[in-house]
Amino acid sequence: MSRWQPGTRERLQDAALELFEHGYDNTTAAEIAARAGTAKSTFFRHFTDKREVLFDGTAEIAEIAVAAIATVPPETPTFGLLDAVLRAIVQVFDPKKRLWYGRRQTVIDHNPELRERELLKRQAQAEAITAALREQGRDGLAPDLVAALIGLSFHAVCTRWIEASDDQDVAALVAEVLTELRATVPTLK
Amino acid sequence: MSRWQPGTRERLQDAALELFEHGYDNTTAAEIAARAGTAKSTFFRHFTDKREVLFDGTAEIAEIAVAAIATVPPETPTFGLLDAVLRAIVQVFDPKKRLWYGRRQTVIDHNPELRERELLKRQAQAEAITAALREQGRDGLAPDLVAALIGLSFHAVCTRWIEASDDQDVAALVAEVLTELRATVPTLK
Repeated sequence: MSRWQPGTRERLQDAALELFEHGYDNTTAAEIAARAGTAKSTFFRHFTDKREVLFDGTAEIAEIAVAAIATVPPETPTFGLLDAVLRAIVQVFDPKKRLWYGRRQTVIDHNPELRERELLKRQAQAEAITAALREQGRDGLAPDLVAALIGLSFHAVCTRWIEASDDQDVAALVAEVLTELRATVPTLK
Repeated sequence: MSRWQPGTRERLQDAALELFEHGYDNTTAAEIAARAGTAKSTFFRHFTDKREVLFDGTAEIAEIAVAAIATVPPETPTFGLLDAVLRAIVQVFDPKKRLWYGRRQTVIDHNPELRERELLKRQAQAEAITAALREQGRDGLAPDLVAALIGLSFHAVCTRWIEASDDQDVAALVAEVLTELRATVPTLK
């Protein structure tokens, strides 16, 4: 038998979110563990600190983006690349967790410590994406610019998904955001 | 006579940077204060925590950017706006502090806690700029996109300034970065 109880990680995340909703600062890892029916030491086997518990999957998103960039032929127009990257990322979006992500974002937005961690994660994603674009042969300010577009459109897709209805097709949101962005770029003169 | 000793704030910043260069994590506000020849309570009259001591002026930069945006006629092309905003910001760059800023950036880059604070400051700047652009009548994704361009080019100017020589004209760096960015934007297809 595994020493890991199935679902422990998810129970820790749910417990953390519920406690954070009643006050982030005073919530301890021990309390999160207790609410999830496990030990404090188990919490720290899963997460390095109480902030990390809300940021599962952010490294995976960077990996998916980097993998998607590697499969796009270098001569692909930027918006073709954006489309491929965003469509790859949103495949991990789980409709059953949409409301959970909305609650999570509200907690993050109200707590500077979590906001800082979120920005650090986003920055790590942007740096991985920038490096992948540079490897693909883009140079100068182009990798930073394209990475900024990916970040901006991913953020817009996430925000709209959280605010959408349960049956919202995420790929349609990607198309919607990219259409808007495509209409905006020519105004940069 | 003022209760504030002239230069205390600057001495605290210098002392903090020197101590952080020998190890950020173990440096306390009390040690910074002692090295600056003042009391711990004085440190906390100037800065809310030991991270803030390296981020003086970041709110001022946002204010300058917002003020510059307000003076640019709404019909100004985006690159005219970028030029006006960046030229306004770099006026606060002090050539005598160029090397200090280089050391500061190295310390920030090596300490995740400082990195997080830097990203939070940049995000606050981006949000202030986005709001100012929205007030100017830009809508949809345009404010986010233009704010991203301002952030990206400001970051490029800062990086190049830190790596430049003492007699580097900062306005020339602004022109250089904007010329590169202007050549890159048409590749977004």
